[in-house]
Amino acid sequence: MSEAALAISNENPVLDTDFAKEMVRQMRAVDTYGTYDDWSVEKILDPFVLTKEKKKEIPVVGDPDEITMSRVKAYYNALSAMIEKECGLMAVPMLNLTHEGFGRAVITVGKLVVMDKTLRDVHRFGFPSLSKMKDEMDTLLSVALEIIGQHPKVAGM
Amino acid sequence: MSEAALAISNENPVLDTDFAKEMVRQMRAVDTYGTYDDWSVEKILDPFVLTKEKKKEIPVVGDPDEITMSRVKAYYNALSAMIEKECGLMAVPMLNLTHEGFGRAVITVGKLVVMDKTLRDVHRFGFPSLSKMKDEMDTLLSVALEIIGQHPKVAGM
Repeated sequence: MSEAALAISNENPVLDTDFAKEMVRQMRAVDTYGTYDDWSVEKILDPFVLTKEKKKEIPVVGDPDEITMSRVKAYYNALSAMIEKECGLMAVPMLNLTHEGFGRAVITVGKLVVMDKTLRDVHRFGFPSLSKMKDEMDTLLSVALEIIGQHPKVAGM
Repeated sequence: MSEAALAISNENPVLDTDFAKEMVRQMRAVDTYGTYDDWSVEKILDPFVLTKEKKKEIPVVGDPDEITMSRVKAYYNALSAMIEKECGLMAVPMLNLTHEGFGRAVITVGKLVVMDKTLRDVHRFGFPSLSKMKDEMDTLLSVALEIIGQHPKVAGM
């Protein structure tokens, strides 16, 4: 992949947000072999952005590979880390995927399920743009924090 | 395996309980090829009972095979079904196991985590006797129902 082909510009303001920093941190955490060590931030986050053209190249039916699965993991790990930062309680992500790319992602805080999402077509996991990706995570984050606010006792159990 | 070698007697009173009936139902549910169709109830439940002698034959370190994993699944599915029967709300089991047999089992009712268990050494999954197995499930069941009783609103979410 040449640098010119990246879907994210290195001047994208979203790259300076906590969201992008956490995503990069989580991607580096699953990068056992240090492949990303000399990669730029926009290059690390690039696979999350599936433009219409990129999406067209992926078959409708397919099995997700290890790299795609690790991206999904990094995404929900980042969300958990952000929930944890906001509410001060431990947030535990749990991802259950069949090898066909169907499954369920759950984040629990104490005895409270703060995020519960059915996943399908994980081999096509991605977002139209980096800011859309941030928007979706912000929504999930605020819903999670709202649930915690409503049931602080269960979250602290 | 000869009939004589079974660890469960066919006169064991536990076999008449709802627990044993649900366990057999769940075992039949994961039995895609109908292997158990002409098996007796005690033969189906026999692998769950690991007597000291049987446990000695299993290496301390090992990877669980598909059949062992399906037994663990059946166990938590049965627990979910029994929670559901008692409280009238849907209980969803979720099992996350690495191929080394470590992981986590969670059962949620609504937004409430009613059972959360860390699993290890799943290749040695089993109980000293059928009545010990029933005791453990009864304990998990009553804890789950207690949590639901304390937070009915969250369980109904």
